[in-house]
Amino acid sequence: MAARKLTRQDLREAAEKYKNWGKWGPQDEIGTLNYTQAEDIVAAARLVKKGKVISLALNFDNNGPQGAKSKYPAMGRINPVHTMLRTGTDAYSGVLDHRGIRASDDMVVMPLQCGTQWDGLGHIFYENYMWNGYDCREVTSAGAQKCGIEKTKSKMVGRGVFLDVPKMKGKDALEDGYAITCDDLDKTAKAQGVTVKRGDFVIVRTGQMERCLSEKKWGGYAGGDAPGVKFENCYWCHEKEIAAICTDTWGCEVRPNETKDANQPWHWVVIPAMGLCMGEIFYLKELAEDCAEDGIYEFFFCGPPLIITGGTGSPINPQAIK
Amino acid sequence: MAARKLTRQDLREAAEKYKNWGKWGPQDEIGTLNYTQAEDIVAAARLVKKGKVISLALNFDNNGPQGAKSKYPAMGRINPVHTMLRTGTDAYSGVLDHRGIRASDDMVVMPLQCGTQWDGLGHIFYENYMWNGYDCREVTSAGAQKCGIEKTKSKMVGRGVFLDVPKMKGKDALEDGYAITCDDLDKTAKAQGVTVKRGDFVIVRTGQMERCLSEKKWGGYAGGDAPGVKFENCYWCHEKEIAAICTDTWGCEVRPNETKDANQPWHWVVIPAMGLCMGEIFYLKELAEDCAEDGIYEFFFCGPPLIITGGTGSPINPQAIK
Amino acid sequence: MAARKLTRQDLREAAEKYKNWGKWGPQDEIGTLNYTQAEDIVAAARLVKKGKVISLALNFDNNGPQGAKSKYPAMGRINPVHTMLRTGTDAYSGVLDHRGIRASDDMVVMPLQCGTQWDGLGHIFYENYMWNGYDCREVTSAGAQKCGIEKTKSKMVGRGVFLDVPKMKGKDALEDGYAITCDDLDKTAKAQGVTVKRGDFVIVRTGQMERCLSEKKWGGYAGGDAPGVKFENCYWCHEKEIAAICTDTWGCEVRPNETKDANQPWHWVVIPAMGLCMGEIFYLKELAEDCAEDGIYEFFFCGPPLIITGGTGSPINPQAIK
Amino acid sequence: MAARKLTRQDLREAAEKYKNWGKWGPQDEIGTLNYTQAEDIVAAARLVKKGKVISLALNFDNNGPQGAKSKYPAMGRINPVHTMLRTGTDAYSGVLDHRGIRASDDMVVMPLQCGTQWDGLGHIFYENYMWNGYDCREVTSAGAQKCGIEKTKSKMVGRGVFLDVPKMKGKDALEDGYAITCDDLDKTAKAQGVTVKRGDFVIVRTGQMERCLSEKKWGGYAGGDAPGVKFENCYWCHEKEIAAICTDTWGCEVRPNETKDANQPWHWVVIPAMGLCMGEIFYLKELAEDCAEDGIYEFFFCGPPLIITGGTGSPINPQAIK
Repeated sequence: MAARKLTRQDLREAAEKYKNWGKWGPQDEIGTLNYTQAEDIVAAARLVKKGKVISLALNFDNNGPQGAKSKYPAMGRINPVHTMLRTGTDAYSGVLDHRGIRASDDMVVMPLQCGTQWDGLGHIFYENYMWNGYDCREVTSAGAQKCGIEKTKSKMVGRGVFLDVPKMKGKDALEDGYAITCDDLDKTAKAQGVTVKRGDFVIVRTGQMERCLSEKKWGGYAGGDAPGVKFENCYWCHEKEIAAICTDTWGCEVRPNETKDANQPWHWVVIPAMGLCMGEIFYLKELAEDCAEDGIYEFFFCGPPLIITGGTGSPINPQAIK
Repeated sequence: MAARKLTRQDLREAAEKYKNWGKWGPQDEIGTLNYTQAEDIVAAARLVKKGKVISLALNFDNNGPQGAKSKYPAMGRINPVHTMLRTGTDAYSGVLDHRGIRASDDMVVMPLQCGTQWDGLGHIFYENYMWNGYDCREVTSAGAQKCGIEKTKSKMVGRGVFLDVPKMKGKDALEDGYAITCDDLDKTAKAQGVTVKRGDFVIVRTGQMERCLSEKKWGGYAGGDAPGVKFENCYWCHEKEIAAICTDTWGCEVRPNETKDANQPWHWVVIPAMGLCMGEIFYLKELAEDCAEDGIYEFFFCGPPLIITGGTGSPINPQAIK
Repeated sequence: MAARKLTRQDLREAAEKYKNWGKWGPQDEIGTLNYTQAEDIVAAARLVKKGKVISLALNFDNNGPQGAKSKYPAMGRINPVHTMLRTGTDAYSGVLDHRGIRASDDMVVMPLQCGTQWDGLGHIFYENYMWNGYDCREVTSAGAQKCGIEKTKSKMVGRGVFLDVPKMKGKDALEDGYAITCDDLDKTAKAQGVTVKRGDFVIVRTGQMERCLSEKKWGGYAGGDAPGVKFENCYWCHEKEIAAICTDTWGCEVRPNETKDANQPWHWVVIPAMGLCMGEIFYLKELAEDCAEDGIYEFFFCGPPLIITGGTGSPINPQAIK
Repeated sequence: MAARKLTRQDLREAAEKYKNWGKWGPQDEIGTLNYTQAEDIVAAARLVKKGKVISLALNFDNNGPQGAKSKYPAMGRINPVHTMLRTGTDAYSGVLDHRGIRASDDMVVMPLQCGTQWDGLGHIFYENYMWNGYDCREVTSAGAQKCGIEKTKSKMVGRGVFLDVPKMKGKDALEDGYAITCDDLDKTAKAQGVTVKRGDFVIVRTGQMERCLSEKKWGGYAGGDAPGVKFENCYWCHEKEIAAICTDTWGCEVRPNETKDANQPWHWVVIPAMGLCMGEIFYLKELAEDCAEDGIYEFFFCGPPLIITGGTGSPINPQAIK
């Protein structure tokens, strides 16, 4: 299909059409996480059948996708810097004994979005507004006074549904620049025998991260070309009433952008208008292997944010429990 | 009871008697987390009956227990410092538009043990050794090469059991310096109709944090006097074969120390000898209220660490799911 | 004297009357540092007569005025956090030898204004403007695009003049809240046999820091009540055409503020309107003793900023050389 | 000349032969900085003749030699991360007005040796010893208890002598791997009409940094091949009794190393045995141009360290004043 180029007007219309402002009241700060109900959590827990826990996080360290090995060390994001406050070598050297205990201790300096993470609802603005119509000036140098990540502290739990798109297509990974259509997602769900429902945490695999890991270089992973959801995906998320969407890429949506008129156009709509949190840089290799093996693509999902008050995102270690 | 003072010899004997080195093989780096089996996780998931998720974390911010408001700003631990890389005020001022997207972004500087956290197995040494007999020199300025917190990335899941000790004693909070006995824990479990089992994540409430929060001052919370488990508790943990123990205090064990010969004597035994991780600075108010209301003191526990490679601990947002 | 309360109108008039915008061209970003000419530097160098170098900095460490020991841990400023990347204990433990060299290395996390520092011209705005009429939106989350401290990289050199006000008044230290008048400064200069001239770096002692140091508590040093220059001092600075003014206090001007209508009213005028940099938290004990001993209150001053691009201030170790 | 390969035995002998331990008493922590006497400082000040101040520092920012653009992002050193605590965009947005002042403020995270810097005497160990025979265990995770950079707070002042080696050789820059001999230095001094004396701060230009800057890529600058002083230079420094040596490279000495038996063999001798501080990553373009123009290669040098207590180095903005 010779697709018409996406325009600012398309963005405006999509933002208007799929805007959820006010849907959960004027004070709401968590958006589509409201879709997940208590009964969904109970049902999701019933999916735990073999007692297997799979971490969906990349280790946080200097081998991460930011910085040194990336062509796109953009915008102040660096890999985590982990330093020690006390060490075992201090202990060995006898310099800690005056305290009566030999202990190590440590510290980290990290951008909240340097690795596996949530994008919170304070992360993206549409013009001067953020989710639910809050003024963008609520996010100051002192942090997000509205929609801070701490508001989601007990909300990142529910049914996880895994959509392994390259598997459906018979590939190891989607190529950079491939735009995942709504039809792709539906076909993948069907092929895997799973139905996406209201309140789900949908996790979409592209295989890009695994390709980078196996090649031992991140290349353009952090901000360069990537497979990802097509702009039309905002309609899909809206219709399905999902709680959140997560991928194994830097920015969920396809790169390069589908338009020259906006950077990350899908972000413009889903975060500020729809109120949808997204998970990025998820490590999905182990989950993909397990699902391929047992044929079960749904599970209990628990991805609690680190509740940094006023954070616009959070590094995480999400858990798929089967 | 005029208790005999704890001596270094007592520590040595306890460390020797309850040492689990080699129990899970010479390569093991996760200790008692091995107690939790797949079937325990499945059974724990069955405890999710009303679909309620309770966060057990304190917000990570400048109001935390370290630093400015503590009399014990010890050892380089500060409250988290959250700074912004881009803001909504930047967006409002129009300075982000050249990138084609209005986004905020942020960074944190934080000691791994500044708030709600896991103590990993690389945190405490007994003489020149850490868990499973590893040389303490495995924890260098470059981090923990053995027993790093990343080794537990999918292991902090299982049955949570909540022991509300002050409630059993008819109090709001235990007083500072009160040493919780094994008998206290057993009585609390009995009063609450729950039995501690192999592989459990045991969460002990003292009420100290809530007292600090209601008084709006941390005082000696971070390192000063506190209620906490008595040294004999290492015997209890060993016998029960629990996976981990967590409290709402800075250091789990009673303060001041039960001896002048060692600082935090219980730590000396449980971490390096027994291989028991511990959770500290847990926020238990909401959990206590919920359990008091429904009378159910067991739940699905999911407390994934932030997997900072080589970390000797981790800030967390543990979830109790009922 | 029953002083008339300072009003916003007074500020407005002072800002208007003493505004130097355009004086050094529309592109200027260093303000009154332009007053210091090459011949002044040559003349200042001639003041080096005994070869004595005096540091005017407080050590940068956890004993600094921010944070733990202050009642005013305001606005995200903390004491420096110094952590090691490699240590001598690592060396002793043998863990560095694989690199063929035994070296230690370190890192610091520090607010630029946590200790002895320059306030740069990007630090204070008057309404929507900064020095020389630049738009305040030039200081974004990405730093100061105009008037960054790096612009002053070779400009903090000239004649230093030391005005020891409490000495003139026969005191050890001025009391908190004492407002230093223009007359006080003139009398001090006269008593010390020195004349303030165009392009000078004027260093005013109040004795407050030494009082805090001797009492071993910072109390309200960082933002609380303090001796300091009276609002009228902006007139004095303007008339004398000094390059910069420095004190041993947190904020140079008297605290509490001379008005309820503005916080730090003198700052409003001198930085954005006049273009005057100021040095704060200078350690003046040793300089005071030396000047008292030799009776010479002028010297070669060299206080180079750490040129953090886009910095609105800088930690420093200024040198008085006699 | 077919040079004999440097051996460990050579290092041992050089360390033994040129060791200054005890020369300035058993308590000394500043080494060869003792060579600079008061009269040298007075004489150096007389060199200020045209009132020109030249900064010898590279800006501290994300364009620095560490990290993203280097092939050698080694050992945890990153470029500085500068973040804002309050901004002009906050001011513009009106969110600061509740404090009654519109101010910006900022913070930095930086390795002490990420840019223009001093290597302090706590930076390198020879076996288990540091300068003056102090035990290397004096440098713990809590910093350098001996020979911390703060000990040099008023000692980095004296006569600067600039040796522009490539200029003497008729080149823009020395090639990577070129080892500067003692003879090269002597010839350069002679060609420039300057004599190196006791207590001098000797600044050696290789031109490598300027080549990197003009090519707009750092390549192997931070740890890769580089021109630099030959091992024999330790004899030269010893004989000349200089205070410190500085270059425009990452590590002063030639890279690759002159031996396989040690990494940075010259460092092994000059820092721990001789007690010589060194300046690295100096920006010398402007100084080179000025000296070429006026033919004067000596000046007043003032390079005060940032006195981070226990620092083993310090970022600096050294000043050459002519």
